[in-house]
Amino acid sequence: MQKVYELYYWPMIQGRGEFVRLALEYTNVDYVDVARQSEQEGGGVSALIQFLENKKMQHPPFALPYLKVNEFIVSQTTNILQYLGTRHALVPDNETDRLWIHQLQLTVADFVTEIHDTHHPIAGELYYEDQKEEALRHAENFHKNRLPKYLGYFESVLASNPDKSKYLVGDTVSYVDLSLFQLIAGLRYAFPNTMTSIEKKYPNLNALHDHIKILPRIAAYLSSERRIPFNQQGIFRHYKVLDL
Amino acid sequence: MQKVYELYYWPMIQGRGEFVRLALEYTNVDYVDVARQSEQEGGGVSALIQFLENKKMQHPPFALPYLKVNEFIVSQTTNILQYLGTRHALVPDNETDRLWIHQLQLTVADFVTEIHDTHHPIAGELYYEDQKEEALRHAENFHKNRLPKYLGYFESVLASNPDKSKYLVGDTVSYVDLSLFQLIAGLRYAFPNTMTSIEKKYPNLNALHDHIKILPRIAAYLSSERRIPFNQQGIFRHYKVLDL
Repeated sequence: MQKVYELYYWPMIQGRGEFVRLALEYTNVDYVDVARQSEQEGGGVSALIQFLENKKMQHPPFALPYLKVNEFIVSQTTNILQYLGTRHALVPDNETDRLWIHQLQLTVADFVTEIHDTHHPIAGELYYEDQKEEALRHAENFHKNRLPKYLGYFESVLASNPDKSKYLVGDTVSYVDLSLFQLIAGLRYAFPNTMTSIEKKYPNLNALHDHIKILPRIAAYLSSERRIPFNQQGIFRHYKVLDL
Repeated sequence: MQKVYELYYWPMIQGRGEFVRLALEYTNVDYVDVARQSEQEGGGVSALIQFLENKKMQHPPFALPYLKVNEFIVSQTTNILQYLGTRHALVPDNETDRLWIHQLQLTVADFVTEIHDTHHPIAGELYYEDQKEEALRHAENFHKNRLPKYLGYFESVLASNPDKSKYLVGDTVSYVDLSLFQLIAGLRYAFPNTMTSIEKKYPNLNALHDHIKILPRIAAYLSSERRIPFNQQGIFRHYKVLDL
């Protein structure tokens, strides 16, 4: 059977691509994580580079990840999720909820950028070791102001869902629930002390994390080799000095 | 006649709200820029604060700007533009182009964040004066790597539009064209030396800027009091030391 979806993303990290992987795994569609295939199978990082250097591409992405569906390419994580969401029932069938879910996902994206900047406030082009002092200053503000602001926001969205479900919107899983799971898991990896010390403030977020984690297809994915472990090259990195 | 759209955004800066203002002005719909009304008219910053502190709101925004349409609230700049785009012919009537335009707008949003971080790499909660050294390091990398990468990307999208129009997508104005105009105008304000020295590399971007600027409704807006001048509180700020 022909695979329909091809995900193009770095093969050694979860990164932004993980939000897409979780959606693909949850919907149970056939997909290929291109760069995780062997070079003999047309995979590897060289497949990513070759693709990005194709100057004749229609709809060229600015950056990874992107999803290829036959000849059509969609990029930017939130855009990919919106695209998949409407096709695979990862959003309710009405515009109001879809806009609301997209807004929440865009807020997740902003949060992810700020988390990344805790270890890379000066330049993604430089190593963490070349911006350690600035990273510490950035992380101090992050823990004091940004982390509680974002977590408090999502906690209150969960708590005030009029459907009183476990989910952010309505009473079924949407792509932003999967992304929130990933955020909480990543924050726990990066900042274990901080997250332990504040977890009581966010009972609904913790419950969402624990619930998503054991959904059968997500649990199967997390325990498979397809799930790349958190590591020190991704967005969520554990530097003891930044876990304030 | 009842005004339909209410924009909630800071009244003293262009900021992210300006991308929405330009779309509203171009489409010629009636709208109220709420905080720019007097307090007697229910405006001012106090109207923003009061709104954000309403804990019972459905679909609460994480941050400004947001757009209120009767009782419906939509927030996150790119989401607002997507919402307005489909309603006011600011995007073509097919999903492929709409996803492509949204991808480009999300890339504009990422670029805007990086531009903001040239003067605020450590914390939005601190003054520029408290992060001047870090700002200089951030700006050096920005000018060397990020600015040419983003501008080169958008230039190539314009140059390779199969419709060979002045616009990024298809042969009519879409919301991302208006946003690109704003980006170029803002970059020229913030970094006049840099932008003058590199402008020959981006003939299509310059042409887009010059074309959008004289569209009748945009020209009328730019010369009106509704257009807040660039200033040192917004995203685009001119610090001579950062104009490398």
